[in-house]
Amino acid sequence: MIIRPRQHWLRMLFIWRGSVLPRILPQLAAVTGLASLITIIHGQVFALKVPLTFVPFTLIGVALAVFLGFRNNASYDRYWEGRKLWGSMLSESRTLTRQYLTLVTDIQQQQGFVYSLAALSHVLRHQLRGTDPSQDLQRLLSVEVYQTLKNARFIPNLLILHLAQQLQIQRQQQQLEPILAAQMELPLAKLTEAVSGCERLSSTPLPYTYVVILHRTAYLYCFLLPFGLVDAIGWTTPIMVAFIAYTFFALEALSDELEEPFGTSPNDLALEAMCVMIETTLKEMLGEKDLPEAVRAVDFVLS
Amino acid sequence: MIIRPRQHWLRMLFIWRGSVLPRILPQLAAVTGLASLITIIHGQVFALKVPLTFVPFTLIGVALAVFLGFRNNASYDRYWEGRKLWGSMLSESRTLTRQYLTLVTDIQQQQGFVYSLAALSHVLRHQLRGTDPSQDLQRLLSVEVYQTLKNARFIPNLLILHLAQQLQIQRQQQQLEPILAAQMELPLAKLTEAVSGCERLSSTPLPYTYVVILHRTAYLYCFLLPFGLVDAIGWTTPIMVAFIAYTFFALEALSDELEEPFGTSPNDLALEAMCVMIETTLKEMLGEKDLPEAVRAVDFVLS
Amino acid sequence: MIIRPRQHWLRMLFIWRGSVLPRILPQLAAVTGLASLITIIHGQVFALKVPLTFVPFTLIGVALAVFLGFRNNASYDRYWEGRKLWGSMLSESRTLTRQYLTLVTDIQQQQGFVYSLAALSHVLRHQLRGTDPSQDLQRLLSVEVYQTLKNARFIPNLLILHLAQQLQIQRQQQQLEPILAAQMELPLAKLTEAVSGCERLSSTPLPYTYVVILHRTAYLYCFLLPFGLVDAIGWTTPIMVAFIAYTFFALEALSDELEEPFGTSPNDLALEAMCVMIETTLKEMLGEKDLPEAVRAVDFVLS
Amino acid sequence: MIIRPRQHWLRMLFIWRGSVLPRILPQLAAVTGLASLITIIHGQVFALKVPLTFVPFTLIGVALAVFLGFRNNASYDRYWEGRKLWGSMLSESRTLTRQYLTLVTDIQQQQGFVYSLAALSHVLRHQLRGTDPSQDLQRLLSVEVYQTLKNARFIPNLLILHLAQQLQIQRQQQQLEPILAAQMELPLAKLTEAVSGCERLSSTPLPYTYVVILHRTAYLYCFLLPFGLVDAIGWTTPIMVAFIAYTFFALEALSDELEEPFGTSPNDLALEAMCVMIETTLKEMLGEKDLPEAVRAVDFVLS
Amino acid sequence: MIIRPRQHWLRMLFIWRGSVLPRILPQLAAVTGLASLITIIHGQVFALKVPLTFVPFTLIGVALAVFLGFRNNASYDRYWEGRKLWGSMLSESRTLTRQYLTLVTDIQQQQGFVYSLAALSHVLRHQLRGTDPSQDLQRLLSVEVYQTLKNARFIPNLLILHLAQQLQIQRQQQQLEPILAAQMELPLAKLTEAVSGCERLSSTPLPYTYVVILHRTAYLYCFLLPFGLVDAIGWTTPIMVAFIAYTFFALEALSDELEEPFGTSPNDLALEAMCVMIETTLKEMLGEKDLPEAVRAVDFVLS
Repeated sequence: MIIRPRQHWLRMLFIWRGSVLPRILPQLAAVTGLASLITIIHGQVFALKVPLTFVPFTLIGVALAVFLGFRNNASYDRYWEGRKLWGSMLSESRTLTRQYLTLVTDIQQQQGFVYSLAALSHVLRHQLRGTDPSQDLQRLLSVEVYQTLKNARFIPNLLILHLAQQLQIQRQQQQLEPILAAQMELPLAKLTEAVSGCERLSSTPLPYTYVVILHRTAYLYCFLLPFGLVDAIGWTTPIMVAFIAYTFFALEALSDELEEPFGTSPNDLALEAMCVMIETTLKEMLGEKDLPEAVRAVDFVLS
Repeated sequence: MIIRPRQHWLRMLFIWRGSVLPRILPQLAAVTGLASLITIIHGQVFALKVPLTFVPFTLIGVALAVFLGFRNNASYDRYWEGRKLWGSMLSESRTLTRQYLTLVTDIQQQQGFVYSLAALSHVLRHQLRGTDPSQDLQRLLSVEVYQTLKNARFIPNLLILHLAQQLQIQRQQQQLEPILAAQMELPLAKLTEAVSGCERLSSTPLPYTYVVILHRTAYLYCFLLPFGLVDAIGWTTPIMVAFIAYTFFALEALSDELEEPFGTSPNDLALEAMCVMIETTLKEMLGEKDLPEAVRAVDFVLS
Repeated sequence: MIIRPRQHWLRMLFIWRGSVLPRILPQLAAVTGLASLITIIHGQVFALKVPLTFVPFTLIGVALAVFLGFRNNASYDRYWEGRKLWGSMLSESRTLTRQYLTLVTDIQQQQGFVYSLAALSHVLRHQLRGTDPSQDLQRLLSVEVYQTLKNARFIPNLLILHLAQQLQIQRQQQQLEPILAAQMELPLAKLTEAVSGCERLSSTPLPYTYVVILHRTAYLYCFLLPFGLVDAIGWTTPIMVAFIAYTFFALEALSDELEEPFGTSPNDLALEAMCVMIETTLKEMLGEKDLPEAVRAVDFVLS
Repeated sequence: MIIRPRQHWLRMLFIWRGSVLPRILPQLAAVTGLASLITIIHGQVFALKVPLTFVPFTLIGVALAVFLGFRNNASYDRYWEGRKLWGSMLSESRTLTRQYLTLVTDIQQQQGFVYSLAALSHVLRHQLRGTDPSQDLQRLLSVEVYQTLKNARFIPNLLILHLAQQLQIQRQQQQLEPILAAQMELPLAKLTEAVSGCERLSSTPLPYTYVVILHRTAYLYCFLLPFGLVDAIGWTTPIMVAFIAYTFFALEALSDELEEPFGTSPNDLALEAMCVMIETTLKEMLGEKDLPEAVRAVDFVLS
Repeated sequence: MIIRPRQHWLRMLFIWRGSVLPRILPQLAAVTGLASLITIIHGQVFALKVPLTFVPFTLIGVALAVFLGFRNNASYDRYWEGRKLWGSMLSESRTLTRQYLTLVTDIQQQQGFVYSLAALSHVLRHQLRGTDPSQDLQRLLSVEVYQTLKNARFIPNLLILHLAQQLQIQRQQQQLEPILAAQMELPLAKLTEAVSGCERLSSTPLPYTYVVILHRTAYLYCFLLPFGLVDAIGWTTPIMVAFIAYTFFALEALSDELEEPFGTSPNDLALEAMCVMIETTLKEMLGEKDLPEAVRAVDFVLS
């Protein structure tokens, strides 16, 4: 996630970092180069004048704007839904911790339970990003639990089961009244929902065909556009084509990043920072003084 | 569902598989053929010049874009709602399994209960796709239960009732405290909601009239368009008409697939993969080691 | 609700049934007739040439498209919300039935309770459509209950109260533990929500003023349009005006039907089919073999 | 709320009541007058020809349509959210009444409790509209309760507290089991949510700045428009300007009314009718025969 | 938040306070100045005529409107979600207070509990705005609690834990039955959700890249626009450019403010007023007579 203070309106026009400009430079160059070429040859291909005008571009342009706007919307919705699911991870982890601390009589196992809960966000992050969870598992779980989980296919889900088993033990030892245990099923269910929701987002991308149709329309539009403009606006054709192509290509590239919010590109969610934040707040509830430091942005990017 | 890695922007323009191009080829050919003919005869029909210009197409084009954009939106919402309902199937199956494993004292019936629950997704899939559930029912249920269910009209619903009856037995045998049994009603109710929600989506399509109006407008637009363009852009008319028609026809065809997300066309949801995934995660919670293999995409399509 | 298989793209252009064409024919004829007249007199009114061009129509056309698109959206949302409320009727009826069958010890009253519940959807439908519920009430309720309810103002609400009273009796007779009775309040509350939600939709239409403004704008637009087009596109004016008017009028007419989804016009929800479906699934849960037949579409319309 | 049957499409063009026309007449007259003046002087100001054409109006017109469409949307969402909150008042009042009638053993206090609950909607309405609640309070509450509440700042909230205190007494007198009392906290919490939600809507208008920007853009647009049209469409300028201005001004005026749905303008919600309806349905649940009459629309307006 | 009565449509055009005009004045001046310069030199740069026309601006203008409209929407959604989260703070605080007053037998600790709850909103506000919570903490909490919390990283979360510990004590002292204590977990969980939701909104801005792309497009558009208009509309170019730029810049500036709704700019939420309101309503429920005064708007701005 890019964290950057708002800047002067003039400086903002020239920002390089935290923009998708680097990523779309080849396309932009190709389109602008083509537009320049067409301008130089006055829209003629092998002595054959291409009689295109701006008219069809007006017709298709509106549709393109509407459809890109919609894709944008859908991608951002996925991004924001991913963020909400992680917000739910934070909120339910806090609630479950609070309930363990105030509803369970036994205070021996508090640290073990809360540390397992703190591990949950970490393993979910590792699952979503395809990274190795061993280090975080070893750091926060007992050896036996680590052994059980390390080769599982759906580690976060098994970890929630492990938490429930801890509660079962407390209940069987009369440290937790059944009516209160029943209440603690709610945050466990919501954590399961959040975990399953993240899996849903990451396993079901925007329909691929939709992406292809819009990609094709946007690129064809920009590549044909110089023919339609060159008679009307002469040598300014490459400038305006580059401008229009920038808007369409940049938005498409950004949508591409936002629609899979759990990755590690600059515009993706700062899962690592969130995991550390969740671990911190749970440890603070335990009364620990030695809290982890918050993750800092590197080059304006929070990972 | 089409699973395909993002590709180079240039290669993406020439993708054939995972696009709706094959499906809309006849229409596209018809429109382009007509446009070519009109270009050749210079927009004259039986020596009568058709005096159409681009003006009315600008007027209707905006409306068409807005309405298609809306339909698109509605179709995608249905697709995503279908996906969420299946996400709920996963999430609530896990929660119910976790509760059975940690709240019910008796451990004899665990496998039976969880296998019945795993069967639920399979029978819902078979109901939605109109396929035969016998094989999955026999594989996961006891013979008696299979006999009861096999000829039912609403098998998933009866299977949930069967699960509740299992809980009733446990409660009557004092293996499950009433207060905890009450809590287990929640995932049962949510599974019922998910099943009923899927039935709702599959029994109530987008209003047919809406589909007809948009189909008519989009096709008439594209068939009349050559008359309006031929004077302005000469021999490039067929090219631009094909381009515009591609965008409209392709989006309409995709919307058609997305709006009924439980079918078996390439852009529909990967219900089979999801069912196997749910079965796997539940079996993993039971501690089984011999887990089913995940469904793989064939030709980029996950079924 | 119109149930019709997708058809060949070409045949779909000529569909008559299941379209709103019959309903908007007078308006379309009026507009097209006027356009023809104006074309014949070359846009002159009493020897006074009307100097309109397409320009103002471009300006207002975009606004009209956006606003109609919005109205469309709002109407469809109402339609879909109505459908969801009925989906909730189905889902909660099943949940309450399942709970009665597995949580209440007494099995004498099962049929009575479930039949009353099946009657709920029917009376809600009758209330929403203003039809007489007597027949369904008599068929599914005991004589005393029927006598109490038949003259009530809000029958569905009183029927839910009746269901709660049945549960109260079971609880007082020790056939239902209080903790389980408490759980059964949830589906009762959700049924009340669904009933009240339907009453909300049916008592609060889209703001009338909004309908008037859009109606006025769309019709004035189409009636003035021929003056703006006749100089540019000559004798094709009536064709294009009819085309544009069709799109606007048809969408307005459809919105009109969708926004009150509980009526009996062809595009309204198939409440009758849903009621029979709910009755069927509840009876199937009771173990009955003699299930009602599903309602069939007549002339592609499911009522 | 305006309640009016749909009318013939032709008559609907000439509706006066239930439209915002009266409210925007001065603005419309001003714009049309200016347009006429500009037409007469042929777009010249003090012998200086204003060289405006339609071009910039096309550019800004699209933006204006999009933004007005958005505002429209936001206002309608507020309206509909307000309606849903009142729907929740109805639904939860019924649920709480049902629970009181079937879960509480004591039947002496039933009328007192349900009447207090019926008073809740009334006092919420009075709070939202700034009217005097004394009459309704005196009619439905005992003298002591009335004395406690009449000078309170947040009467509806204190009334909910009063209801909870009634339940507390029943619980302490063993007329209500704790587990059932716990269940009755749910509708109380939802009533609190609905009350607080109404206060939220009424205390937080649409951002004022947004309203100002759109107002300015829409009015400047319409006032400058005649200069841009007069050369193109001559004496029809005032007609088309009036038409365009009508659409923009009317939608803005309607948005203004809808965004604060609890007022007393014709397009606001019919709070009074809803309060009477809630009172009626609760009294009917008590078994009363002498029910209040439904509020009737006066001049098509339901207050 | 700006609180201002609706004004006459004419006066509204000249409002200065409560508009973003002051903030965007430099940009507007720059654009208008440039437009004037270009008009004076007739669109020539160093004797080289820039042959731009309005055509490319039509093409990009629609896209810009759609994308700005979307950003607008997303910003307003964030604003409204922030408002809803605070509405939830109010609603759940009232519910928890009501439950404490009617479900807990001991009446000694009532004031302490409710005052701690009143402090919660204040500390959340201080956390979101980065201000010092000491004064409010000291005013509403006991000295020991104040000492524990004052240096915490996530004060609101620890305060909720403190509230839960109070309930734990009551439960252990038999002043609160477990079943009722379980019910009181619900508002505690919802308060945690609201607190975590506010942290989510304030830590995750709109994707920065999105802001940059739109900023760039909007500003480039306005700076290039004079070249495209000067030939068509002569000396009115600066006027129309200023008008168009005003709409785009003002909406962008407003979106900027709305998207981070917890700040202290005039268009942000009135957190202070809300905190005082929550404190007041809780104290009123305690039966206190000496209630805080409502915050008043200063210069139409409620802070």
